[in-house]
Amino acid sequence: MMLKELRDEVYEANMDLPKHGLVVFTWGNASGVDRERGLFVIKPSGVSYDELTPQNLVVVDFDGNKVEGELNPSSDTATHAVLYKTWEDIGGVVHTHSSNAVSWAQAGRSIPCYGTTHADYFYGDVPCMRGLTAGEIREAYELNTGKVILEGFEGVDHIAHPGCLVRNHGPFSWGKDAAAAVYHAVVIEEVAKMALHTEQLAHASGRAIDDCLAPQYLLDKHYMRKHGPNAYYGQGK
Amino acid sequence: MMLKELRDEVYEANMDLPKHGLVVFTWGNASGVDRERGLFVIKPSGVSYDELTPQNLVVVDFDGNKVEGELNPSSDTATHAVLYKTWEDIGGVVHTHSSNAVSWAQAGRSIPCYGTTHADYFYGDVPCMRGLTAGEIREAYELNTGKVILEGFEGVDHIAHPGCLVRNHGPFSWGKDAAAAVYHAVVIEEVAKMALHTEQLAHASGRAIDDCLAPQYLLDKHYMRKHGPNAYYGQGK
Amino acid sequence: MMLKELRDEVYEANMDLPKHGLVVFTWGNASGVDRERGLFVIKPSGVSYDELTPQNLVVVDFDGNKVEGELNPSSDTATHAVLYKTWEDIGGVVHTHSSNAVSWAQAGRSIPCYGTTHADYFYGDVPCMRGLTAGEIREAYELNTGKVILEGFEGVDHIAHPGCLVRNHGPFSWGKDAAAAVYHAVVIEEVAKMALHTEQLAHASGRAIDDCLAPQYLLDKHYMRKHGPNAYYGQGK
Amino acid sequence: MMLKELRDEVYEANMDLPKHGLVVFTWGNASGVDRERGLFVIKPSGVSYDELTPQNLVVVDFDGNKVEGELNPSSDTATHAVLYKTWEDIGGVVHTHSSNAVSWAQAGRSIPCYGTTHADYFYGDVPCMRGLTAGEIREAYELNTGKVILEGFEGVDHIAHPGCLVRNHGPFSWGKDAAAAVYHAVVIEEVAKMALHTEQLAHASGRAIDDCLAPQYLLDKHYMRKHGPNAYYGQGK
Repeated sequence: MMLKELRDEVYEANMDLPKHGLVVFTWGNASGVDRERGLFVIKPSGVSYDELTPQNLVVVDFDGNKVEGELNPSSDTATHAVLYKTWEDIGGVVHTHSSNAVSWAQAGRSIPCYGTTHADYFYGDVPCMRGLTAGEIREAYELNTGKVILEGFEGVDHIAHPGCLVRNHGPFSWGKDAAAAVYHAVVIEEVAKMALHTEQLAHASGRAIDDCLAPQYLLDKHYMRKHGPNAYYGQGK
Repeated sequence: MMLKELRDEVYEANMDLPKHGLVVFTWGNASGVDRERGLFVIKPSGVSYDELTPQNLVVVDFDGNKVEGELNPSSDTATHAVLYKTWEDIGGVVHTHSSNAVSWAQAGRSIPCYGTTHADYFYGDVPCMRGLTAGEIREAYELNTGKVILEGFEGVDHIAHPGCLVRNHGPFSWGKDAAAAVYHAVVIEEVAKMALHTEQLAHASGRAIDDCLAPQYLLDKHYMRKHGPNAYYGQGK
Repeated sequence: MMLKELRDEVYEANMDLPKHGLVVFTWGNASGVDRERGLFVIKPSGVSYDELTPQNLVVVDFDGNKVEGELNPSSDTATHAVLYKTWEDIGGVVHTHSSNAVSWAQAGRSIPCYGTTHADYFYGDVPCMRGLTAGEIREAYELNTGKVILEGFEGVDHIAHPGCLVRNHGPFSWGKDAAAAVYHAVVIEEVAKMALHTEQLAHASGRAIDDCLAPQYLLDKHYMRKHGPNAYYGQGK
Repeated sequence: MMLKELRDEVYEANMDLPKHGLVVFTWGNASGVDRERGLFVIKPSGVSYDELTPQNLVVVDFDGNKVEGELNPSSDTATHAVLYKTWEDIGGVVHTHSSNAVSWAQAGRSIPCYGTTHADYFYGDVPCMRGLTAGEIREAYELNTGKVILEGFEGVDHIAHPGCLVRNHGPFSWGKDAAAAVYHAVVIEEVAKMALHTEQLAHASGRAIDDCLAPQYLLDKHYMRKHGPNAYYGQGK
């Protein structure tokens, strides 16, 4: 069986989704890539987390063709594949239907950066992609979901914004590996919840929601102290 | 004792209700049918989930008459019975007072389809039934609750909308068996929560809630990829 | 040591408060009465639930005087006492700071009956008492909290409304014993949460909140099928 | 290894943060002081709670210099340090990104005192500090965060208001030791949640949020019965 270590990592990442309360039933999936082989490991479709094992994960290439595994890969495989194919610097992808993130996606709104919790991981908003057209859905729904994400990130740094919402659908996130993509999925859900409540509090006191935006220099500071060349958060390398 | 396997299934379905956070105390019940015998198994009334066993479930016919069991069946038995009697293609029924679904029922509103989480299971809204009249309540409250559901589904496909809200009351759901009915009860609660937050986010940004509706072609795609003749979600049969 | 069985009951009732998520730290207390002796058993003040035992509960008379126990009784003892003294048909009292119930109390609003979850236990609203005056607070705060409750229930059946909110404070509930009082505390918290969301959904769709009120005949039916002379919910006696 | 007992206390305080639901991942830290030695013990930066031990906590002086420990101290160490240096009567400091408290901070609003849950611990609002200027952030972000708190408390009793919000950031709290600072962090999160819902309920019924404010004499009573010279809550000394 191929890619034993990667299977273990992707298994752990998938199991972390229900542990963090991001997933009900089978409504989510995580994958991780092996760049040398040009393959990635992903959750099988519709399999419950109770039945998931490192062994029943599926290995797929960057065109979404199954390379190893008895089960069908996640129905979202083509979305993961095109992201890996295009963004060579990502190692993991996650998709969930976490409640607060979906609510923003359903409202068709990007999540504004209202504070440092958000700024520690996203250097600006969590962008909401446009919905797919009827033609795009008919032609190749999951592949085109990935393409709509790529289109929305033209001119946007996908490392500094490690996730997004797809309109009327839900959040996608990514990172250097599957665990990092899960981490960013948790961040999106948390900041989605906080931003909803922030707007309600602004509203209740007659304040404009734009007055709640974190100033650019606070974004700079928080993102840079974690991710910049002189980052000093954590224990370094 | 009759219907041993069905008892086990219905027992599991009932126990899943508090596990999924749908039920406080005894505020919910699940049932499952044996079509050959024309009987169904249902939770006894007011018995706590701690004391529930496959053996103390009650067997009832489609007119709600007790056929086997020492305890009284759920006070909602007549509602379950008339749904089984009329819709020959359902195998399980669930009723809960889950918090977000009840909130929509109390507001007297159908849950609009704002996204794919919803569209994966409901091909359109989760419809809210009219309230019962004083006469209907006086005459035969629980039976007429079922009849009001049947009336509300005239011209609506109850397989493509596997659940509903009853005004000022709460959600009812159904499916091919008791487990599927529980699944749909979870779906209703989740989409009820998401749709509430979606509307709040629309409101906070001065957007109309109707702008949040998922387009019809997205509904078509998501419902069909799970339930249509060419469904490709999951592992097939 | 007096009242062993009652101590066990009151201990269980107190322990159920954090189990149901009604209490953070020591912010709640339950008591239960022995009508023959004219005494009640109550949680000691400021003792954490981890350290609570049937033995360190405190026995008090209806004027709030300690009869047995090494610890000080709950600071709310005088409130419990005057309710027991005045309402001879109650056997247990509970006070919590559960989140949603407190929110209604802080808004100074009675919880309207929007549906059957509520109508199964309260025959109308969960009434919000007026706040105490500066003089009442100065004179005898906890005793006068009880008196304000008694004043608010003049002309209101305290069995058909087994609990209330005290303005800017929180919920009090009661019942035939300590367990019933806990049950009603859970009901208040649940219907408080549902009613908040109901109003938000009405608001989001431009509907008046009064349109959400359950009709009187639905209240009659639900309250009576559980508590009336011909009650048929549960397993009878 | 220095300060064994204090390490144990600070370890317990840090572990209580995720236990109370205040912290996701590593988004929070607690510290405790040894006044005789002029040192405090604080969580290391970016270390997960699973890997935390009393031994890997870091000892720091009041200028934020590391005195003992292999790991880097929390990136917020300079904020803790300046609070200990200036307020000689505090023994513990906590910082979290708890969801509801952050929402108020992001809305730039102090949490008004709407009831007794709040008044039991804060003698008035939970004040929201101004945001830092670009210059303050550039110069010495974490130190200046502490200085902005000190500035905001000029003329405000920091014992009677044992915590605050920093705009666009989140809550800080303190107390006689690390455990007390954690306690106050829980209080802030709870009252933040209740106050949000209070305002929504006021809004839904067309009431002004200022009408929900607890009267001053209720604040006096609740704060004083717990903290005044004649306090009678709990078991005394």
